[in-house]
Amino acid sequence: MADKKANIGVVGMAVMGKNLALNIESRGYTVAIYNRTASKTEQVMKDHGDKHLLPSYNVKDFVESIQKPRTILLMVKAGKPTDAVIDELLPLLDKGDTLIDGGNTNFHDTMARSEKLAKSGINFIGMGVSGGELGALKGPSLMPGGQKEAYDRVAPILEKIAAKAEDGEPCVTYIGPNGAGHYVKMVHNGIEYGDEELIDETFNLLRNAAGYSVDDLAKIFKDWDKGELNSYLIEITADILTRKDDLGDDKNKPIVDAILDRGANKGTGKWSSIDALDIGAPQSVITEAVYARFISMMKDERMAASKVLHGPAKEPKFNSDEIVEKARQALYFGKIMSYAQGFEQMRMASEHYGWDLKYDELAKIWREGCIIRAQFLQNITDAFDKDPKLTNLLMDPYFSNIANKYQDSAREVVAFATEAGIPVPSLSAAISYFDSYRAQVLPANLLQAQRDYFGAHTYERTDRPGNFHYPWYKEQ
Amino acid sequence: MADKKANIGVVGMAVMGKNLALNIESRGYTVAIYNRTASKTEQVMKDHGDKHLLPSYNVKDFVESIQKPRTILLMVKAGKPTDAVIDELLPLLDKGDTLIDGGNTNFHDTMARSEKLAKSGINFIGMGVSGGELGALKGPSLMPGGQKEAYDRVAPILEKIAAKAEDGEPCVTYIGPNGAGHYVKMVHNGIEYGDEELIDETFNLLRNAAGYSVDDLAKIFKDWDKGELNSYLIEITADILTRKDDLGDDKNKPIVDAILDRGANKGTGKWSSIDALDIGAPQSVITEAVYARFISMMKDERMAASKVLHGPAKEPKFNSDEIVEKARQALYFGKIMSYAQGFEQMRMASEHYGWDLKYDELAKIWREGCIIRAQFLQNITDAFDKDPKLTNLLMDPYFSNIANKYQDSAREVVAFATEAGIPVPSLSAAISYFDSYRAQVLPANLLQAQRDYFGAHTYERTDRPGNFHYPWYKEQ
Repeated sequence: MADKKANIGVVGMAVMGKNLALNIESRGYTVAIYNRTASKTEQVMKDHGDKHLLPSYNVKDFVESIQKPRTILLMVKAGKPTDAVIDELLPLLDKGDTLIDGGNTNFHDTMARSEKLAKSGINFIGMGVSGGELGALKGPSLMPGGQKEAYDRVAPILEKIAAKAEDGEPCVTYIGPNGAGHYVKMVHNGIEYGDEELIDETFNLLRNAAGYSVDDLAKIFKDWDKGELNSYLIEITADILTRKDDLGDDKNKPIVDAILDRGANKGTGKWSSIDALDIGAPQSVITEAVYARFISMMKDERMAASKVLHGPAKEPKFNSDEIVEKARQALYFGKIMSYAQGFEQMRMASEHYGWDLKYDELAKIWREGCIIRAQFLQNITDAFDKDPKLTNLLMDPYFSNIANKYQDSAREVVAFATEAGIPVPSLSAAISYFDSYRAQVLPANLLQAQRDYFGAHTYERTDRPGNFHYPWYKEQ
Repeated sequence: MADKKANIGVVGMAVMGKNLALNIESRGYTVAIYNRTASKTEQVMKDHGDKHLLPSYNVKDFVESIQKPRTILLMVKAGKPTDAVIDELLPLLDKGDTLIDGGNTNFHDTMARSEKLAKSGINFIGMGVSGGELGALKGPSLMPGGQKEAYDRVAPILEKIAAKAEDGEPCVTYIGPNGAGHYVKMVHNGIEYGDEELIDETFNLLRNAAGYSVDDLAKIFKDWDKGELNSYLIEITADILTRKDDLGDDKNKPIVDAILDRGANKGTGKWSSIDALDIGAPQSVITEAVYARFISMMKDERMAASKVLHGPAKEPKFNSDEIVEKARQALYFGKIMSYAQGFEQMRMASEHYGWDLKYDELAKIWREGCIIRAQFLQNITDAFDKDPKLTNLLMDPYFSNIANKYQDSAREVVAFATEAGIPVPSLSAAISYFDSYRAQVLPANLLQAQRDYFGAHTYERTDRPGNFHYPWYKEQ
């Protein structure tokens, strides 16, 4: 083995790094592996000693075991651990080598590292990886951003390890320079938050305001998965709702009812909202999903508040036969608004950061491998294929038709939930976005008057260009 | 004049700096003034040569003209210009001198500068100033954060120049260390965005769904200003709605109808949402107000979308006699949610950044001088006076009673707007927050199941502590 060099190296033998290494190896490559703590590498060799893996127990050996120009995939914790590994590798690398950061890294960090490494002549690819542990092993969706030449060199490997869509296309493409890959992964995660929240709100509404049982809801979601809502998240929701508590006393209790309603998060969802705010992109559906997780974490506060704050005086009624189909339409309507906002954010980011993102390609590589995979993404691909300069998904006939058609159900469901005291923050935000986005006149005219009144911030006029100040303080 | 030293120096003779200098001078102090461009200082001396102002035309003279230990107020543009002035002053200052940054500075920058300057033994106060040009001259609300000893030394001046509340108390207090003052000012501005958006949504709804004219609405807001909504922003809204276009052909046209509905922003509102996301504070009402401005800026997109996206099929009806009072209650309900979120954010920030904020004091200094000044703030002061450890405004009897009482109107108004196709993003977010915050069980249990399913993120249980993973992939 000693004189055969590896095609690629992987640093970090936690589950994601190990599974990606095994995935690459399974496509006919020899993979150098390294982990700071030797025992992890030893364990991998114990479990997979028969595979084409070249283990090293120090960085120097590891780097030397990879053929030049080297490609090294970093699968370590985002932040300082990533910097530490880069600093260790840097003196051992040669110009033209390529580092790929496959961690959950904030795109700002990727942009900074890309700039820093470019000075040493080292290529740097920040790559979003979606699909979890199983995806890493069997085929994830990959979102690499960095130098195009460097991407082209590693593309054959990435295309082999990526998930394949129904039409056989690999779920990987060149996203754009520096932080573009990690940015797109971040928005993917934001969209994932939105999808989950919309599903969870619908579940909650049907259960608590329309009286459906968890078993009923398992069937409802299973049914929905056969139609236009077809997606991985709807599929697993249907499955989850059939599962019973494996640890409690009552083995017939649905597992959801044994689970504490505190929704955790690992940061990428909030990052996408933070950048939306930073660049001026209205991304309310996802942001409400992030806030919903925050409120859910305040369990003790909520329990105390539930004793002080009451629900509505009257319980409104809904025809319970109709509510299922209307909730389905509302959910799809909400999903369309969420993706419209997410793609609008990427369009604005592409301009802001100078990335020239290809929106049809982005939708394409999300069709398989990642958490938001869905039939729906083919419709988005089609929309941007037809019109690569599409400003907003809602301007595509497929999406505008559905939005126009389903809006009445969405309105009815949100109005009902509002009167019934069931929180539907993301669904409400979806309606507000739709009604704001199609508004010829918004009350921002009054806002500008207020700002000009108290702060002399000036206003623009409807009838001529320029900035004007009204003599508010002159007595009439 | 040459041997009389100034009590304080002011750098930056743009309108805010000039007005603060004149305000300080009017309270019996001698003020050294300096501006990078000499002509501004010359203009001030031309207009106010009779006052106790000591002009300098270079930094050295300026610093020497101030008595030791020096107090220097910087009123320059936030960001690089502020750094440039500090760098210029630093070599001329002595240990124990105090710099006050009264600009619109991001609290992260204030924290960094505070740390850097502490190494040179220079005190640094980051001070939020609210009230606009007129407030600066007559009495602003001041939010200083920094070293307590430094604050104590400058407090006599600050107390004299600040606005006075009805009970005579000056609208200034020590906020906390390093960035606390600028943070509180940032949240003030976020709350201001929320107040404006809630007013503007109500205006839009009453006008477009209930058919009230601008003249009618001027009377309605004037009437509301006499009750519990009494505030500066309601007052100026009523006034704005009486004003006619001074520049157009039709002198009877309300000025609001001549103003383009593109709502600008200078960043502090979005900063407050960004930090809310960063520290885990659900701040949806303000965030929707920020997004509403973003959407309003997309005027061309909106005009195009209005041709493709339709409104609801049916026009719902509302008893137009009742809608005014119900809208008033909805607006007050929304305002309470917005402030509950803003104060919750400050509580979480205080823990996160280690500031020990005094919430009753914060509400107190907003009673006069600043844009959100209102009778309402006395109620907040009272709530925190009664219980300094109050977790959320909604747990105070005054606020919980009103929220409980007005919720039905708020629900009815939001449901109506939703069905009528009038966007009410912040009002909707207010209802969603109320219903989420008082929910014993949120669908985050399903979310945790989803996260555990696709990412093995584990879940907590309702019946015992610990983190658990469900065997999703084991065949049943």
